[in-house]
Amino acid sequence: MSQRTKVKQILADEKVQYDVTVKGWIRSFRNNQFIALNDGSTNNNLQIVIDPATDPALQKRFTAGAAISVRGEVIASQGKGQRVEVKAREVEILGDSDPEKYPLQLKNKPSLEYLREIAHLRFRTNTFGAVFRVRHSLAFAVHQFFNERGFVYLHTPVITASDAEGAGEMFRVTTLPLNNLPRDVDGEIDFKEDFFGRATNLTVSGQLEGELGAMAFGDIYTFGPTFRAENSNTARHLAEFWMIEPEMAFYDLEDNMNLAEAFIKYVINYVLQHNREDLEFLAQRLVEEEKQKPQQERSEMSLLEKLEFVVNNEFMRLTYTEAIDILKNSKPNKSKKFQYLIEDWGADLQSEHERYLVEKHFKKPVILTDYPAAIKAFYMKQNEDGKTVRAMDILFPGIGEIVGGSQREENYDKLVTRMEQMHLPVEELSWYLDTRRFGACPHAGFGLGFERLVLFVTGMGNIRDVIPFPRTPKSAEF
Amino acid sequence: MSQRTKVKQILADEKVQYDVTVKGWIRSFRNNQFIALNDGSTNNNLQIVIDPATDPALQKRFTAGAAISVRGEVIASQGKGQRVEVKAREVEILGDSDPEKYPLQLKNKPSLEYLREIAHLRFRTNTFGAVFRVRHSLAFAVHQFFNERGFVYLHTPVITASDAEGAGEMFRVTTLPLNNLPRDVDGEIDFKEDFFGRATNLTVSGQLEGELGAMAFGDIYTFGPTFRAENSNTARHLAEFWMIEPEMAFYDLEDNMNLAEAFIKYVINYVLQHNREDLEFLAQRLVEEEKQKPQQERSEMSLLEKLEFVVNNEFMRLTYTEAIDILKNSKPNKSKKFQYLIEDWGADLQSEHERYLVEKHFKKPVILTDYPAAIKAFYMKQNEDGKTVRAMDILFPGIGEIVGGSQREENYDKLVTRMEQMHLPVEELSWYLDTRRFGACPHAGFGLGFERLVLFVTGMGNIRDVIPFPRTPKSAEF
Repeated sequence: MSQRTKVKQILADEKVQYDVTVKGWIRSFRNNQFIALNDGSTNNNLQIVIDPATDPALQKRFTAGAAISVRGEVIASQGKGQRVEVKAREVEILGDSDPEKYPLQLKNKPSLEYLREIAHLRFRTNTFGAVFRVRHSLAFAVHQFFNERGFVYLHTPVITASDAEGAGEMFRVTTLPLNNLPRDVDGEIDFKEDFFGRATNLTVSGQLEGELGAMAFGDIYTFGPTFRAENSNTARHLAEFWMIEPEMAFYDLEDNMNLAEAFIKYVINYVLQHNREDLEFLAQRLVEEEKQKPQQERSEMSLLEKLEFVVNNEFMRLTYTEAIDILKNSKPNKSKKFQYLIEDWGADLQSEHERYLVEKHFKKPVILTDYPAAIKAFYMKQNEDGKTVRAMDILFPGIGEIVGGSQREENYDKLVTRMEQMHLPVEELSWYLDTRRFGACPHAGFGLGFERLVLFVTGMGNIRDVIPFPRTPKSAEF
Repeated sequence: MSQRTKVKQILADEKVQYDVTVKGWIRSFRNNQFIALNDGSTNNNLQIVIDPATDPALQKRFTAGAAISVRGEVIASQGKGQRVEVKAREVEILGDSDPEKYPLQLKNKPSLEYLREIAHLRFRTNTFGAVFRVRHSLAFAVHQFFNERGFVYLHTPVITASDAEGAGEMFRVTTLPLNNLPRDVDGEIDFKEDFFGRATNLTVSGQLEGELGAMAFGDIYTFGPTFRAENSNTARHLAEFWMIEPEMAFYDLEDNMNLAEAFIKYVINYVLQHNREDLEFLAQRLVEEEKQKPQQERSEMSLLEKLEFVVNNEFMRLTYTEAIDILKNSKPNKSKKFQYLIEDWGADLQSEHERYLVEKHFKKPVILTDYPAAIKAFYMKQNEDGKTVRAMDILFPGIGEIVGGSQREENYDKLVTRMEQMHLPVEELSWYLDTRRFGACPHAGFGLGFERLVLFVTGMGNIRDVIPFPRTPKSAEF
């Protein structure tokens, strides 16, 4: 098949007087002469100028959504809005699009909610075109960042027999016949008959397996799907989402913070370099969206300013204890505006507290460290004060927690004692504990929810709009 | 924490007379003087020379697997096997390793089967160090190949309500209480009560969702985990494996073959450039392994020769019909050596036939096209002969099918007719069919099983040895 030239390249080259074949989908057709052609390589359309004498029957088929192939010459454009356009010599309809039925007509701009219902077609809009090209670039930047630093990409398992981490509710995975479940002698379901010979679930995190890799390769990262069977119907939660989890041997908490901060800045900088047009479109979209809001609720910075700000400024670092002091003495706490008032050290921070610190108090990304052990996971390194752990959370404006991490407890006895206190099955996790029996070393790691990052970078408001086909309670379409 | 220098860098630089801090795990300690230190950045150990006057109590702790931190000076090595070594000024034990208990002693070389049982530690061996660094590089090369060509990386869903594709047996995903399943009025299990409000499974392929993306972005690819609940206990099957599935608008079968061939050559070439030492180690490992085999069963080419051969030679392309003719007249068919004799056109090819074509007849990778429609999936483009489809399988020596793909049927009526013939739920897949209703165009794609590729490139014999924690029938350890 004759190869096509992509629209992005024709527009970027700005060369004229050469022949091309372009293929894509019609966005609009006006004045019986101008086709706006989009091929998904960029949001910018290529203007195709057709001979007004073109068969009217053919012209009638130049409808939104139709796929066409065009042969013609690239020429300097007479009109506004583009430097070059294609003077068509031949237009072939590859696939029609019935204007009575096609849901994406330019005239009635569809809402994001409606587009979620037709997620299989929403990629064809400017908003989702930009969102998913940015998502692509962020994903590539993730791999490039770690590859450049000699990290090994580790595919940790999705199906797991371990349910010990307690990171969240899990989905059961089974091939047992639900209508005729095998029972053991005690009448219990006999998971020995299940595919894996035991009960299995979908992973909530690749961290524990990641640590095994770090104890051999030094630096590893995961980037894969993780799952939470939690009935959270919010704009920030998904039942299936992608997570990035680096684990590094010979890292302490400060190294961990340095890496996480460098990582976030690197990937944002990458899209600033590679997706300028998409970001400018999304910035404008956000401005339009916020016009509906009262002035004081609108963003203080434009999307691009916000991204530049994150790249160019150091994140604020402070301990949980320092944060509690700030929150205790804050105006919304004193005037009882917080839903959960901060009274004592040890309180778990709610979204309202995180947002106050990030958006009102510091007005920049914040890294909180050294949380109370009681509200953090068993594997975090215990501080000498006997009550805090070497945890770190990175909090972002509008998003809240985007990274959670810690130095890991490498001392076998301390770790086992902690697991026993928390009633975790020490025996079952003996493979994990082996990393503390053979050549233990200080190490650290973190997890970053990829969709939260995409949400922040694209300025979208709902996490369902930054993953192709969202999985949420009562919804698994497509 | 003071940053360490990685062993790979010290060995590559070959500079001398500068101070470093290195950290890693002891592989061996000999003559009360020489520590072989490995940090996972390369299989090559860094020789650490300690002062023979070092406290004997400390020396006793220099055991295989122990984690240490070393400060010292990089000097030219007096011994054989390395250009530089580190003269230690200070050695600190970070974590001991009890030689009575540590399973990886150099003296008794563990078998691959045994190492599978301790998969959490096998990363620390030379074989698995090399395998997983090569796997990492292949994964990075996959992303780089597609990114360079403007493909969008699409994360298709892992949990799916669609079970229509028929690519294989599926795992059920549920949060229903198995001991107390909700029933509807007819006594059937009420999946409306399940997390997603319907029955869901783990995906067997992201292709159908991928096509939706291709119809907007032009070129997309997926790279994620896929699942088969098949009771196949072989050296080539996993229940959980990673698959790469590109989908391209405006591609016909030939474009598809060209892309697949270029893709495979690109990623293999990438590891030839970036993982030379690992490949040389794996090549030597294969030679050792094959010494146990009779001469005629050993590989004709070394691992590196085989990889160079694939990169530098065109794949053989022929139709299924041509292949059947060759097989029918082949020696093993005439002498009835094949388990399944080839008699008539229409026969499904078995592994023995594929291997004959690739390993005996052509002695190179083979792309077979235009298979009988009856043995291929519903979405493949129907040829005008009324009996074959525009399918392509790429067959590799020692591996068999490494890629399966096709041009897709873009004609709505033909596709629906085929689905009805195959008793597929047309209504349920209306979102998929919408790509044929609105702006359909010729398009194509393929799927490549990532572990099969890693198997080929590393020369390993069992697919369980090229994924960190294999999931197979009756086994979901770690």
